Amino acid sequence: MTGWQKDRIEIGILGLGVVGSGTVDLLQRNRAEIERKIGVPYHIKRIAVRDLEKKRSVTVDRSLLTSNALEVVDDPEIDIICELIGGVDPAKEFVLRALQNGKQVVTANKEMIAKEGHALMELASRKRLDFQFEGSVGGGIPIIQPMKNALAGNQVREVVGIINGTTNYILTKMSQEHAGFDDVLREAQAQGYAEADPTSDIEGYDAQYKIAILGSIAFTSRVDVNEVYVEGITKIAAADIACAEELGFTIKLLGDARRVGEDRMQVRVHPALLANSHPLAATNDVYNAILIKGDPIGDVMFYGRGAGSGPTGSAVVGDIMDVCRNLKFGSTGRIACTCFERKTMQHIDEVVTRHYLRMTVQDRPKVLASIASVLGEFEISIESVVQKATHDGQAQIVWVTHEAAGRNIVQALKRIGDLDVVVRISNWIRVAD
Amino acid sequence: MTGWQKDRIEIGILGLGVVGSGTVDLLQRNRAEIERKIGVPYHIKRIAVRDLEKKRSVTVDRSLLTSNALEVVDDPEIDIICELIGGVDPAKEFVLRALQNGKQVVTANKEMIAKEGHALMELASRKRLDFQFEGSVGGGIPIIQPMKNALAGNQVREVVGIINGTTNYILTKMSQEHAGFDDVLREAQAQGYAEADPTSDIEGYDAQYKIAILGSIAFTSRVDVNEVYVEGITKIAAADIACAEELGFTIKLLGDARRVGEDRMQVRVHPALLANSHPLAATNDVYNAILIKGDPIGDVMFYGRGAGSGPTGSAVVGDIMDVCRNLKFGSTGRIACTCFERKTMQHIDEVVTRHYLRMTVQDRPKVLASIASVLGEFEISIESVVQKATHDGQAQIVWVTHEAAGRNIVQALKRIGDLDVVVRISNWIRVAD
Repeated sequence: MTGWQKDRIEIGILGLGVVGSGTVDLLQRNRAEIERKIGVPYHIKRIAVRDLEKKRSVTVDRSLLTSNALEVVDDPEIDIICELIGGVDPAKEFVLRALQNGKQVVTANKEMIAKEGHALMELASRKRLDFQFEGSVGGGIPIIQPMKNALAGNQVREVVGIINGTTNYILTKMSQEHAGFDDVLREAQAQGYAEADPTSDIEGYDAQYKIAILGSIAFTSRVDVNEVYVEGITKIAAADIACAEELGFTIKLLGDARRVGEDRMQVRVHPALLANSHPLAATNDVYNAILIKGDPIGDVMFYGRGAGSGPTGSAVVGDIMDVCRNLKFGSTGRIACTCFERKTMQHIDEVVTRHYLRMTVQDRPKVLASIASVLGEFEISIESVVQKATHDGQAQIVWVTHEAAGRNIVQALKRIGDLDVVVRISNWIRVAD
Repeated sequence: MTGWQKDRIEIGILGLGVVGSGTVDLLQRNRAEIERKIGVPYHIKRIAVRDLEKKRSVTVDRSLLTSNALEVVDDPEIDIICELIGGVDPAKEFVLRALQNGKQVVTANKEMIAKEGHALMELASRKRLDFQFEGSVGGGIPIIQPMKNALAGNQVREVVGIINGTTNYILTKMSQEHAGFDDVLREAQAQGYAEADPTSDIEGYDAQYKIAILGSIAFTSRVDVNEVYVEGITKIAAADIACAEELGFTIKLLGDARRVGEDRMQVRVHPALLANSHPLAATNDVYNAILIKGDPIGDVMFYGRGAGSGPTGSAVVGDIMDVCRNLKFGSTGRIACTCFERKTMQHIDEVVTRHYLRMTVQDRPKVLASIASVLGEFEISIESVVQKATHDGQAQIVWVTHEAAGRNIVQALKRIGDLDVVVRISNWIRVAD
């Protein structure tokens, strides 16, 4: 209770879009229970919006709104700034200024955390301020708080997850409806599951930000988001999903961060074939799931809705409650940045996985043998192979290899592509272990 | 940082069994990383054990051990007491005394929390002490901290889970090996998955304690453990598992706590048929999984190893880290007991579920119709029914009903049991929704 003098905690909110509306709605609707839990009343003092006239899904007193974010950030009475604008600019400037003004910050902004988190957290730490971002990964799924608290005694070996709802929705529909990527993307856009400009989701950037955040916490070493290998789902064809299914796999976009020896790590985002028995394989539609492998915890998995107004609002409000308790007890800055180390990144070429290769060849004798021989030259051994005649004297061959480094596959595929009998290499997708 | 004057935090441990060993091992092994995260050194000052000579799985300095727990609890230098003895007596006396001595407490003792938590938490709250018990439910799975923090803004509608590893192991083996309960129990005991006296697990008491704890947090109302309906797995036969599988179900022991209207709740432990598509259905062996349904979060699920030295040690160490941070920042008692309300318990007779009924009848015309007619009298309608001739002119009938109150089933079964044509009612198991 040290130092706490105020009657109530004043909250300022930047942004009243999907997450902002969910946050404000929850703060208003569950006020009685929330205040009893934190033991102190709160008040939403000001909300900055871009457009004062826009119709909102949440009812707020018109007098709370301002189109000038600085009126919120610079308000001397406000204790907590919730940045729910998204993107780096101008969110970062507002957050920086809020911290400089001595305010606690809660955000759900994965891009800003992944790209600029370092400087922001350093400043927050120096000033003993809270800087919380549970909503930046996995929507409402508690993942950052558990990693920083309940699981913090573990040495994490790996964090792997389905951390983008849009691509998971698309891949689920492609699988269920045997439909192509473009058709399903259009359907997802029509239903609001994909944005008008879907680039950040389908190219994997959204997942890249999120896995960079999770990796940084897991390995106590800042992950440079630019060093995270990223590959989206645009090249996944209905044929890949069908072939994967035949072989007992499902295709998901995975974010994966692993400890490599003492001082390296491996962080990547790409589509992957998951055996149907994989703990993440049953995660469908817009659901997210994150699997943590640690010592001594073993495998622990978190599952829930990874986006949306309600779930992400739940995470933001959870953070606000944590900050309120810290304000009340004078313990802000209680859990600061934990990136003490400087691990280097293993290049994707070095990363060893199994691989799925799909190619179209001329349907002639010895073709399979000649390709297998090239794979063998690059020390790639075969787990399974399926060849099927298609039409026009062609055949499709699908290989699943044993473990091999990415570099070997790159080199082998170059040689295989040059073979006369190979019409085209249709796809190469990694297989999850 | 207010008030923190000491060079290091002194930890006292009561009990060096499975959980105690895991805790001490982790505190010793990951010391560097843990101390960097909490920002303060710690020291295990004293460990109370029953038998000083017993061989331990963890290496500890012999001079730390004492067979007198009061030497630990009363040591004026010790800041945190970890009670890892289990059971109510004498654990409760030690914890009470530790709190009276002004010490922070971490425990993994579900029975003590469920039965005596109220008095202990009240005392801790009054004295602004931390009282943490993440390890009491779900082993290493973070569930109590997330419910009290990240998810705390939600109104929880239901917490349902597979929260006893031993019974889940037994049911999994019965299903995989088509084996009977007694055989699998013996096998589980031989392999260390069930205790020599398995009563607390197989009769559902362990799960009863855990669901009482989860329900209390979820509904901010203390659940009286004696009011929790409990039914173990001893009556589950191989035939039930086989019949359930034929109908697309798997049988699990569930703990379930639900909000009923504004001021009631429903808390129960019993075996249940889960559709194979149920999010908990794929939780096998000793794994635990807990599903929370809340507003606005929707469904969120936590999965991991629900017991054992490493996982539970991970939870205890997570709690210790939290307490260390609170000691450092002078914010102990930051999250106190949240049972503000007094909800009453709905009786199991009132609880509405679907039901599975298996019975042996004489294989004569109109038998099925006469039973169906009794069910109809009690307003129990049928979702599916399978009748199979067995031998000796008998037949087995398996019913899955639509939703009906437990009371109606009790009454109907009494009447059905009295019918001449009914040889025996073999089982009645609830069906999860």
